[in-house]
Order: sequence, then structure tokens, then C-alpha cells
Amino acid sequence: MTSSPASDAAAASAAPSPAADALVTEGRLPTAADVDDAARVLAGVAVETPLLESPLLNDRLGFRLLVKAEPLQLTGSFKVRGAYNRMARIADAKRANGVVAYSSGNHAQGVAAAAKLLGLQAIIVMPADAPGIKIANTRAWGAEVRTYDRFTESREEIGAALERETGATLVRPYDDPYVIAGQGTVGLELAAQATQRGAAPEAVLVPCGGGGLVSGTALAIRRDLPGAEIIACEPEGFDDTTRSLESGAHETNDPAARSVCDALLAPTPGELTFRLNAHLLAGGRAVSDADALAAMQAAFGWLKLVVEPGGAVALAAALKARDVFRGRTVAVVCSGGNVDAERFKEALAAEPLV
Amino acid sequence: MTSSPASDAAAASAAPSPAADALVTEGRLPTAADVDDAARVLAGVAVETPLLESPLLNDRLGFRLLVKAEPLQLTGSFKVRGAYNRMARIADAKRANGVVAYSSGNHAQGVAAAAKLLGLQAIIVMPADAPGIKIANTRAWGAEVRTYDRFTESREEIGAALERETGATLVRPYDDPYVIAGQGTVGLELAAQATQRGAAPEAVLVPCGGGGLVSGTALAIRRDLPGAEIIACEPEGFDDTTRSLESGAHETNDPAARSVCDALLAPTPGELTFRLNAHLLAGGRAVSDADALAAMQAAFGWLKLVVEPGGAVALAAALKARDVFRGRTVAVVCSGGNVDAERFKEALAAEPLV
Repeated sequence: MTSSPASDAAAASAAPSPAADALVTEGRLPTAADVDDAARVLAGVAVETPLLESPLLNDRLGFRLLVKAEPLQLTGSFKVRGAYNRMARIADAKRANGVVAYSSGNHAQGVAAAAKLLGLQAIIVMPADAPGIKIANTRAWGAEVRTYDRFTESREEIGAALERETGATLVRPYDDPYVIAGQGTVGLELAAQATQRGAAPEAVLVPCGGGGLVSGTALAIRRDLPGAEIIACEPEGFDDTTRSLESGAHETNDPAARSVCDALLAPTPGELTFRLNAHLLAGGRAVSDADALAAMQAAFGWLKLVVEPGGAVALAAALKARDVFRGRTVAVVCSGGNVDAERFKEALAAEPLV
Repeated sequence: MTSSPASDAAAASAAPSPAADALVTEGRLPTAADVDDAARVLAGVAVETPLLESPLLNDRLGFRLLVKAEPLQLTGSFKVRGAYNRMARIADAKRANGVVAYSSGNHAQGVAAAAKLLGLQAIIVMPADAPGIKIANTRAWGAEVRTYDRFTESREEIGAALERETGATLVRPYDDPYVIAGQGTVGLELAAQATQRGAAPEAVLVPCGGGGLVSGTALAIRRDLPGAEIIACEPEGFDDTTRSLESGAHETNDPAARSVCDALLAPTPGELTFRLNAHLLAGGRAVSDADALAAMQAAFGWLKLVVEPGGAVALAAALKARDVFRGRTVAVVCSGGNVDAERFKEALAAEPLV
């Protein structure tokens, strides 16, 4: 990972530049103040998830590790935060048309849950090979699920067609300022919880697919924990954000790439999210599927937390970087826990990282 | 389970009778005020564990289920609460002699962690067949572990001999007023967390071995949630408290009984704990090993929480009692999560309860 400071991050979060004020989708590039606003909208809706810590694991690692436990969120992942914050803003005249979304599974459940809470109809486009628990739970929240082939069809095109046909509001998985601000409440809570226990993380590691969670989290962290560098963590083969941060341009992943981290398979960084991340992040880091599975095992044994593969990549990156972090305090986000039993058994059988 | 109200519970918790003031071990029978005092001692030491809830699981069950998540406690179970509350009271003149304890594993880790935090030496007597994770973690906390044969040796005798030889303070696993009061902070937190979210549980189900957790929890719950009945949950074959509550006398378990619930294998109710439980509880309920394993699977899938077999018996009892609880609000304590991977795989393969 690079360690260069995100030098203009404070400017980006505190006082948006004129460019950042341009309307994208339906709003400005979000700021830390928008994350505060999202927290008000989400109060009493989203769970304030705990910041976990294992003294024995800290001893073993040689650094202090704080773990934000989003598997304990309402839908088993952070995604309901952004979805609800977006959907709570839908104009009255559009509410009756409902919402549509495409998702590999966690955004699906987030949108479905937010729709139920807000009294909206939801149609969710999901890949046919998404984990069974994610499809089943999306339906259980009351949404209509339409499946597609991840490798031959475009979910964006299917979503856009549904939007045109039904007049429904498309709830994007990450490239929306309200979605980003909603996910940012993870960082807002993390900073407050760490500060409350006298911890000042020097690094915050966050799983990254399209970049909504890490960009929103970075908005809050750059303001509330200014000494922390923020690192996007991705699966190997899907390290588009890591490479884009290095090159300064939108890099894309090899379409032939595969990973067990089903939540993190976006092909390229989002437009809004990358504009934020290019300013706010210190860099990125990619982890192997084997390390993601081993991190799930570590969360099972040391934290008693069920984490899914994509949700465990930041934990994996931290466990792999003991030399870098020795003596420091590090926070990671475990972003979701929606994993089938068979995959979890693989994790229990993995070669331990710690 | 019986549903008769614990009619004199308020008296027992608010104004101890003269008999309850008799010194036992080294103190009175504890009251809810002693639980409040324990909470002050434990502030900043024990984790305030979250009260989890899954809206989808609630829908499936037909009642509202609140789950107090003690696997997320410092040592992976509630036991550090009582151990620390007891050990913080050791007189200065006795501190240098250290502490001794016997335990199947969770009390061992609780005492070991409390000893480390308080700067005391600890010797822990553990059965040789305790789960590997429990023995390893007890050592990792810095305690000296001595193993014994659960079926041919008496841990009480070994502990008492060590106490005589070393002058160490014996930290009993449940039959101590400070231990009971410390475990009671689980109930104190549960009541406050439920009340804060507008929930008023009509039943609180708690795992029961020697009865320390359920008696302490009952002290707080009878005062702070007076509408709730409290139910002790035990493994089949180890339902000594259930049968003792029915008969009014100390019943014992068949020495030939076996269970996967390694945390709950006490042979008979404690003296202090049963005096409290006889007043405070509405009854008991026994669950099969298969149901405990299925409850672990439910906690994995719906709550993303790792629970050990003994920690899951109250959840199992709730999941089995859907007809009784329909439309009501029920709280359960999941008391620990220290389980080896092999046992957890058994749980993942269990016949689902929900």
C-alpha cells in the first residue's frame, strides 16, 4: 500500500471546490456534513454496530486492532445505510412508482429493507449465481427479485430499462451522493467509538467494490480522525481502485477474473466515488481469496463474528501487514456477513493467518 | 416451562429478608443494588455487549426476539464480569497470593483475564477434555493451567487443596455473591437496552449451569423489567435447576449424563444461586444437544454471531417455543462463543430449527 498523505483531503471534505458542487446524478459531491445529515436520517433505523476488539488477538498481532462489525447491521451488511438515506429523499410524486436496483446481494437486501421501512415497492435485479442467502433474504424483505446472467447480461441495462418502463427510481449501489453519505455513517460511528475509548487509529482499512463505503467512510474519517490514512482493500483480480489510485485514471478489471468475494466484483471505480477516493485515500491493497477466507476464520475465532468473504478483505489486509502496523492502532471495517454455510466451512478449513 | 409468576421476587431483589442477610461465603445474598455496584466496578473493563435483533427472523418466528450477545464480551463469554467483580474486592494483604479457580473453560478465561487486568497471579484447574480454544486462551491470558479428569477427579477438591497450599483466593464459578452480582450486569444492560428501543420483554431466557448468570440477571430484570418472567435453560440430562425449581430441593444430575454443552455441566444448583433462583425464576426448560446445535446455526445465519453449544440453549428454547411466544417480545442471553471449528461445522450441518 502507498503511504503518501491524502494532502488535499481536508479541503475536499470541509469546503467542496466549485467542481465538486456540480450536480452529479441529483446532487453535489457529498461532504462530511452530508454524512452527518445521513446519520440524522438513519437514527433509529440503522443499527449503531459495535467496534469490536480482542486483547488476545492484539497481543498476537503486535498492534491494536479495532473492528467495525457491519455484519451486525440490520440486513447483515452496511448497505441499508446508503439505500435508506437515498430512498428517504424520493419526492412524494415519485414514491408510488417504487424503486429498482441491481446488486450482487447486499445492496439488494439494503434496498429491500429500506423499501419495506419506507413503504415503497422494490424490484431488484440480481445475478443468478448470487449466494442463496442473499436472494432469499431480499425476497423475505418483500422485494421482487429478477435474476440475470452475470457474465452475458448487463445489470446496468436491465436496471435502466426497468426504470424507463415503470418510472421507478433507480437506487444505484454506490454512484449516488446520498448512498455515499449514508455508507459514510460507518466512518462517523467508527471515529466516535474509537475516540470514546481513547484510541486514535493511524490507519483505517475498508473493503472496496464500487467504492461507496470507502469514500463515504473517508469523508467522516478525514474530518474526525485526521491522523488516520484510509486504505481501500480489494480482492486480487478486482483491484481496479488500487490501480486507479496509482494511475489517476479509471482502470478496469479483466472480465475473466473470478473471486469468492461476491460483494466486491464491480468492474471499475464509480465516477463519484473515484473523484472522492482520489483525494481522500492513501492507497489500496489487494488480498487473495485464500487470505479473505483465513480472515473469516480469524473473525470466527477471535471476534465471534460471522463475516462474508468480501466483508473480510480489510481484516485480511491488516492481518497480513503485521510488520507495517507493529505498535500502532489500526481500524478495519468488516462490511458484511451474508455467507452460506458451505463457504463458511471453507473458511474454517483455511490455513490460518494468525 | 412453568408460567407462574415469581410472586415474591420484588421483595427478594429490593429488600432482602433477614435470612438473606446471613453471610454466605463472604457476603450477603446479593441484591439488585449489588448488581448496580458491580456495573460501576466493571465500567471501562467489561464490554457493554449489543442486544441484537433480526427483523427477518422476527417475521419468521412470529414474535420479537432480542438477543444479548455475550460472545462479543472481552473473553468470548459473560464470565469475566463476575470474576472481575469478585477479584477487584480481594484485600490488599491477600493479593500477592494470587487466585485459584476451577472451570470447564469460560470461567477459566474470565478469571485469567481479570487476573491480568488486576495484576494478580492465577492458577486454573481445567478438565483435560475442555475445548482446545478454552485451554489455549486461558494460557494466553497469562494464567497457569492444571488439567484433571472430569469423570474421576473432583475439581472442587483440587481447587480447595491449591487454596490451602498457596493461600490464594478461590474464585468460585457461581456460588459467590460478587460473582453473581457481576454476571447480573448482563441483565442490567439487557433491560436498559430493551427499554431504550421501546421493547418490553415478557420473558427472558438465560442459559443455566450452576445458576450464577441466571440468578444475577434475574436480580436486575425483576427490578428493571418487572413484567418479564425469567426462565433458566439447560441441556437435557443437566436439568438440575429445572427439576429443583419444581421440587423445591437440590436435585442432582445422573453422573452418566453427557452433553455437547460443555459450559453447562454443573452437577447440582449452587447454594446461593438456588436460594435466589427459587424466588426469582418462573421455571426452567431443557433442550436437546441437537436443538442447541441448531440454535448455533440460527445465530450464524440470522444474527451473524458465533455461539457455543452451552451459550445457545436459551436461544434454542425460544426457537422451540414459537407457539407459546406468538406476538410477544422475548429476550434471550447467548452467553458465550468459545467453540472449536469442528463443533461449529456440526452446527452448520444441523437440521434447522427455523
